[in-house]
Amino acid sequence: MPDYHAPLRDMRFVLHEVFDAPALWARLPALAETVDADTADAILEEAAKVTGQLIAPLNRSGDEEGVLWLDGQVTTPTGFKQAYATYIQGGWVGLAGNPQFGGMGMPKMLAVQFEEMLYAANSSFALYSALSAGACLAIDAHASEALKSIYLEPMYEGRWAGSMCLTEAHAGTDLGILRTKAEPLDDDSYAITGSKIFITGGEQDLTENIIHLVLAKLPDAPAGPKGISLFLVPKRLVQADGSLGAENAVSCGSLEHKMGIKASATCVMNFDGARGYLIGGAHQGLAAMFTMMNYERLSIGIQGIGCAEASYQCAIDYARERVQGRAVGGAQAPEKVADPILVHADVRRMLLSIKAMTEGGRAFASYVGQQLDLAKFSPDAAEKSAAEALVALLTPVAKAFFSDTGLESCIHGQQVLGGHGYIREWGQEQLVRDVRIAQIYEGTNGIQALDLLGRKVVANGGAALRQFAAEVRQFAHQHEAAYGSQLVVALERLESVSGWLLEQAKHDRNEVGAASVEYLHLFGYVAYAYMWARMVAVAQSKCASADDFYAGKLGTAAFFFSRLLPRTLSLEASIRAGSEPLYALSAEQF
Amino acid sequence: MPDYHAPLRDMRFVLHEVFDAPALWARLPALAETVDADTADAILEEAAKVTGQLIAPLNRSGDEEGVLWLDGQVTTPTGFKQAYATYIQGGWVGLAGNPQFGGMGMPKMLAVQFEEMLYAANSSFALYSALSAGACLAIDAHASEALKSIYLEPMYEGRWAGSMCLTEAHAGTDLGILRTKAEPLDDDSYAITGSKIFITGGEQDLTENIIHLVLAKLPDAPAGPKGISLFLVPKRLVQADGSLGAENAVSCGSLEHKMGIKASATCVMNFDGARGYLIGGAHQGLAAMFTMMNYERLSIGIQGIGCAEASYQCAIDYARERVQGRAVGGAQAPEKVADPILVHADVRRMLLSIKAMTEGGRAFASYVGQQLDLAKFSPDAAEKSAAEALVALLTPVAKAFFSDTGLESCIHGQQVLGGHGYIREWGQEQLVRDVRIAQIYEGTNGIQALDLLGRKVVANGGAALRQFAAEVRQFAHQHEAAYGSQLVVALERLESVSGWLLEQAKHDRNEVGAASVEYLHLFGYVAYAYMWARMVAVAQSKCASADDFYAGKLGTAAFFFSRLLPRTLSLEASIRAGSEPLYALSAEQF
Repeated sequence: MPDYHAPLRDMRFVLHEVFDAPALWARLPALAETVDADTADAILEEAAKVTGQLIAPLNRSGDEEGVLWLDGQVTTPTGFKQAYATYIQGGWVGLAGNPQFGGMGMPKMLAVQFEEMLYAANSSFALYSALSAGACLAIDAHASEALKSIYLEPMYEGRWAGSMCLTEAHAGTDLGILRTKAEPLDDDSYAITGSKIFITGGEQDLTENIIHLVLAKLPDAPAGPKGISLFLVPKRLVQADGSLGAENAVSCGSLEHKMGIKASATCVMNFDGARGYLIGGAHQGLAAMFTMMNYERLSIGIQGIGCAEASYQCAIDYARERVQGRAVGGAQAPEKVADPILVHADVRRMLLSIKAMTEGGRAFASYVGQQLDLAKFSPDAAEKSAAEALVALLTPVAKAFFSDTGLESCIHGQQVLGGHGYIREWGQEQLVRDVRIAQIYEGTNGIQALDLLGRKVVANGGAALRQFAAEVRQFAHQHEAAYGSQLVVALERLESVSGWLLEQAKHDRNEVGAASVEYLHLFGYVAYAYMWARMVAVAQSKCASADDFYAGKLGTAAFFFSRLLPRTLSLEASIRAGSEPLYALSAEQF
Repeated sequence: MPDYHAPLRDMRFVLHEVFDAPALWARLPALAETVDADTADAILEEAAKVTGQLIAPLNRSGDEEGVLWLDGQVTTPTGFKQAYATYIQGGWVGLAGNPQFGGMGMPKMLAVQFEEMLYAANSSFALYSALSAGACLAIDAHASEALKSIYLEPMYEGRWAGSMCLTEAHAGTDLGILRTKAEPLDDDSYAITGSKIFITGGEQDLTENIIHLVLAKLPDAPAGPKGISLFLVPKRLVQADGSLGAENAVSCGSLEHKMGIKASATCVMNFDGARGYLIGGAHQGLAAMFTMMNYERLSIGIQGIGCAEASYQCAIDYARERVQGRAVGGAQAPEKVADPILVHADVRRMLLSIKAMTEGGRAFASYVGQQLDLAKFSPDAAEKSAAEALVALLTPVAKAFFSDTGLESCIHGQQVLGGHGYIREWGQEQLVRDVRIAQIYEGTNGIQALDLLGRKVVANGGAALRQFAAEVRQFAHQHEAAYGSQLVVALERLESVSGWLLEQAKHDRNEVGAASVEYLHLFGYVAYAYMWARMVAVAQSKCASADDFYAGKLGTAAFFFSRLLPRTLSLEASIRAGSEPLYALSAEQF
């Protein structure tokens, strides 16, 4: 497995040059004192060291060894415990956390870069803390001051971890039918009883305590999703002074054996009258949980970018070293028995596909991060609410498009290595196995697509889309030379399809579901086209600098616009075929 | 892991109704006495039993256990040895083999159905005999009568297996640079010395002997691919009377640890002056090996269809049983807590995508099988040579398009199961891991695409394509109601792109490589459209029969034409962007 080196040059390009993040930070009061360009760069460099030198070296051994379960105890692979201890000393779990409780208060724009590194280095390791940060968000937003004051600090420190307990064996996407019960006890706490599956980090040996956020139903709960409440259930009970008390009635019944992320403990968790504390109002648990889920969705999307970047690094190294055949125009390395395979057109196509999608995705993750920062920190109410609308619209796109193109990219990366890509020692096959889960968990990508088209476009009559489109159109018109006209064509395709779908949805209730996944992809390509146009506008202004980086950007953009963006043609045609072909078969005819 | 049931109804539909194979067999002298409709059906039914009851049950346990290597000996997983012994008693290895040497002489059209079942049931198991049948073909076509009389019979019986030794650590796609040497001995045999990697079934414990077909260079060999010769190298030497003699100097140095097909032994094979026998002329080994490789390419393509079918069977069972959420138009199963997920549009989209591609692929495999039968058995020289041209043109399409869409299908099948698809016990993740290799081995799909566009289209000025197009056009014009006009539109797109590429290739040597993979996909969709039109023409004539099967065919065809065939739009646009965007970056700028 080759080394992982964080793509710092591209991350700085995105942060400083494309989005001028330091200028934004300077004008947001909560960030002005916290972070500037130098601080951000120093954090990224330190993050690159931690991920590249401490965490990445455990990726393949973690996959080979896996997690062990014995009598309810989970053992993470060799080296994880020591690495985790070092990792939390750097304060990384609380990087974007609330400073009131020990977090570093860094902007999300910076945190997304760090998350990408973490997933690229070791997706399994990344998950142990990704869930902590999300759980903190939900606790911070919805729990009582008493709970916040006890739980948030050790969680941001990483001494305690968070988990997210939603799924039950019979209830995954359909949480409304879950059966876990919460019965009131005398002291304002509840007895939680039920069994949850697919719980990432539900048990592990890295932290002193694990704080489970559990969806359950109160005795008087109405049926369906409006009867769900959220509870904080610690693995070990916590005294009023914050010290650890007795074990709670929570246990790990077994681990799942999975395709990938084998060093991540995916647990069956049993709650046998475990003591829990209500977070948010009774029956309002789903809304509270969505605070965590929306955070995790962006994070899980970024897993797709991280794995794709790692796959690219391995593939480009291989393509430069491996000699096989000759360039069609004549030998490029006549001193060798054959030319490096990078001379071959189709190898370049695969590499450029990964590069174009990964760099587009990195920029888009930063863009969504910027909107999250504006939504959180802007003192201007209009700016804040505009950003909130964009975050709601773009989060499902980010989660699903990053992870779908992440898989495609890792498959390309594996293919560049030919037979060696299928062999474990090169690491490419692990990346394919590891990235695959990102399309499934935190709500399958099909669910993300329904969320996008149903809730975020159709439900508001396309208002949020119009806001985004206006921004894109304005940029395109101001930057005609930066693929402005191609960007407008792609945008108009999205708008036209959206308008057609808004009409169709009025009389065909199946239309949203029938179009949703292809619609999300169409949206994704347009969003990436916007990102590439923004990157090109910057690179064009710098390309006289003789820095290969900018020339590479322009070349990659040319590839994106000419060879990937045309996928929107097929997506439109398929969507416009409507829902009818999906319902032509009876259940028996399948 | 759910059971596998061979799709006998669809196989009979393709053989009898779509292609009227029995009528073809009746008019080919070599087949007229060998096979008729009843024989074919009886063979398919027996094959369904063998694959479903004997071989499929070992698929998951074989994956879990894997193959073991100890001191050069390979042990296949528990149950393989017994199952293999039963399997060869049925004569399956020689199903389409030469009757002169004990083969059953069955048509390829029938054999492809059996191969699909075998890969669907257990890809690893399938590989142990798939290579034997291909090796027999090469021996039969190119070896001396003496070698044929000794080796073919036990190989068709399955008592001896074949292997295919091409790749060396530094020479995969580029066989011209291989280093294995063959030195003449006194007795017309050769001493073979060298090391080969990625040798499927190079060593195993299933058969009494293993017959390696090894590419090596004679002392006077010219450089490059024209200096390669082919040798038959038995694991155990064979006496003149066919009995086994001493061990040859062939050993298995290690096994690869792979992403999938874990029950298949992928060996490093060392030849230390091993005795071998020349097959075909000196320095003409690559042409002789291609007899085997072309056979294996179709077979490996069929692995894609088989795995996709297995994935579909698991997914449709799950989608009928798993209840989650409600149909948007109101409860479909009000007696249950939720509706089966088959009611949801996107679940149907994924299932229909698999179904449309698998059934289209099954028909196309049969179509290619038909051309192979005509090329082999037709007494009419013109018919024979037309069929040979189609086989050459369509083999790379079959290998790459079957396996590319096979992976896409297995990923859809896995996605239908949500989190359960990522867990080992459901078998979907194994299918994804197993099918992935089919895009890589027997020449990567990139190499297949170069073969198609470079050698099979551009090199003959499009002649073979015109032949295929004329057949498709004639059918379309005769069957206007069976999507005839959509088929013509798709065909014209392929023709127009082909014409453009023929022009481009004259002045841009990179153009073939730049367009090849997307061109192969464009070709694949058009070929499947032709298959679907043929299936529709039959189903339309039968749909008054109230048999759900025909209605299902028509519904699936509607899905294919309206929601999958539009992918050709993007493929055309991407191809027409040309090679320039692939060469905009210098090696350093990647």
